[in-house]
Order: sequence, then C-alpha cells, then structure tokens
Amino acid sequence: MKRILVDMDGVLADVYSQFLKLEADETGVLRNRDETNGKLESEAFPFYEKHVRSKGFFRTVPVMKGSVEGLEYLNGKYEIIILSSATEFPQSLSEKELWLNEYYPFIDWTQMVFCGRKDVVSGDIMIDDHPKNLNFFPGEKIIFTQPHNIRLIVPNCKRASDWDEIVKML
Amino acid sequence: MKRILVDMDGVLADVYSQFLKLEADETGVLRNRDETNGKLESEAFPFYEKHVRSKGFFRTVPVMKGSVEGLEYLNGKYEIIILSSATEFPQSLSEKELWLNEYYPFIDWTQMVFCGRKDVVSGDIMIDDHPKNLNFFPGEKIIFTQPHNIRLIVPNCKRASDWDEIVKML
Repeated sequence: MKRILVDMDGVLADVYSQFLKLEADETGVLRNRDETNGKLESEAFPFYEKHVRSKGFFRTVPVMKGSVEGLEYLNGKYEIIILSSATEFPQSLSEKELWLNEYYPFIDWTQMVFCGRKDVVSGDIMIDDHPKNLNFFPGEKIIFTQPHNIRLIVPNCKRASDWDEIVKML
Repeated sequence: MKRILVDMDGVLADVYSQFLKLEADETGVLRNRDETNGKLESEAFPFYEKHVRSKGFFRTVPVMKGSVEGLEYLNGKYEIIILSSATEFPQSLSEKELWLNEYYPFIDWTQMVFCGRKDVVSGDIMIDDHPKNLNFFPGEKIIFTQPHNIRLIVPNCKRASDWDEIVKML
C-alpha cells in the first residue's frame, strides 16, 4: 500500500481563513483572500508572528472544505501519514493533535508526525502547499493551491485546487 | 554526515526516575530501580497511565546523566534528529519541545520529530531503549540500557549503558 504524506496547514487546515479573521478582529477590515495572492503568509499578514504564536491559533483553525471526506476516503485506500512542520511553534504541537482528533477521528496517533523538516520522513506521495517541501521529495508530488503558491510552477508536480481534485487524482 | 536518530524517553529523559518519584509521592515508598528490571514501564508502575498522562510529567522529567554533554558533542560530528514517540499522549508534545529547549539549547526546532511510529523516519544510526523501534531499523543500532531491556538481547545491536559509552562508540 502506497504511503501518502499529507500536510496540515494550507491542506487540511484553512490557515488563510484564520489569518484573515484574526486580522479583521484587529483592524475591523476583512480583506479578500485574493489580495494575498503571490505572497507567503508571513508577507501577506502584518500580524503573522503575533497570530501564529498565539494560544488557540491552531486549535481553532477552520477545516479545509472537503478535506474530512477526502482524507477519510484516502485513509482506506492508502497508508496515510499526517506530516506537519510544527516544531517552530512549540505551543502548536498539542493544539494540532487535539484539532486532528476532533475533526479527523479516523486518523489515529500512529499516523501523525510533527517535525521541523520534512525530508527525514519517507513516503510515496506528498500533498503539500509549499514548494520548499515538495522540491526535495523523490516521489509523486501534488501541490495544493493556496494564495501564496497560485502563480508558481513546481517541476514534476501535479496541482490540485481543492480536495475533490485530490480524490479524483488518487 | 551521518544522521543519528536519538530517542527521548529512556535515552535523554530519565523517565524511570520520574515514575519512581511520582509513585513515592502516592505511596510514601520509594522503590529501588532494580525492582523494575525486565518489566516495561507500563508493567512496572501501577500508576503508569495516570502519571504519563498527567500535566507536567514530560516537562519536569529529569535529564539522563551525561546526555547534555554527550549530545552536544555528537551534534557537531553528526546530523542529529531527536525522534520521539509522543503522539500517543497529545499533551506531551509541547511539553517535550519546551523541555528540549531548556536542557539542550544547542538542538534547534529543525532537529525535532514527534511521531507515533518511527519507521517512517530515515537515518543511519538509531539510539533507542525500545527493541520495537530498533528491530525494524535498517541502519546501525544502539540500545540504551534501561531496566525494561536489561535482560534482552537485540540482534545486530550494540548496547550502551550510559552516555559515556555512546560517545566512545561514535
């Protein structure tokens, strides 16, 4: 059975919605997601550092549309490992696991990896929104469209705009 | 540069001392470590489940003797990845990273992996106290002596009784 490495932020967790909401709470202005196209989250959101390090950010992030049904389908067909860059933010670790347990209860604790760099983890297929993770990966690669990567072409990489497209590909 | 996968509990973290202390707090009796020889922690300690899931267990665990100096020495000579089975206990994740940051400040967040199963992570050398992790590992293996493994012979595996021995081997 092939192993898929599935990213969290920007693939399962809709972090853009969370950043936009928290920014609107500060400024009173809810920006359109398209305004952030082509920029990394840290460039697009002036309060990025404050918000990403705040208690509850990862525990309350919205679920990406279609990801629960999509991941549950793939979980029967492939060996699924949730692979999240998380150790940059120590408080995020427990929040991320509790969030997974709440929304994806079919994923058990043996299927989770929280790390600082993804190239130490092996798999056959990687689904991620960041080219920095996909570039080194030797297997099949799927970039999940998010505003920061919307204008990029990643070599040897399929692109999925949403979870329906992922399910059709796999 | 060869990559070493270094376990936390029973290699960097002296979990037996923590279990014995917490047990003594409950019962008033501080048992000798040797009484637990040949038993997994979950068998040796009647309050195992309560204590391992309690807030602060991993944040306050004593550091294994010699591990700070030993790991700092290896960190210049090898690529070090701290690899800990941690997702069984969601609250442990953030505690473990904060504990590493406090006692091993030369290890940065890119060198940490918290997982549920270790066979998805690749490396050249593994230092671990549990045969279940070492058995599948295709590289060089070092079993770190702890009471639960003291009577076991693990095939194709060197044994280190303390951190001085690890440093001499590597």
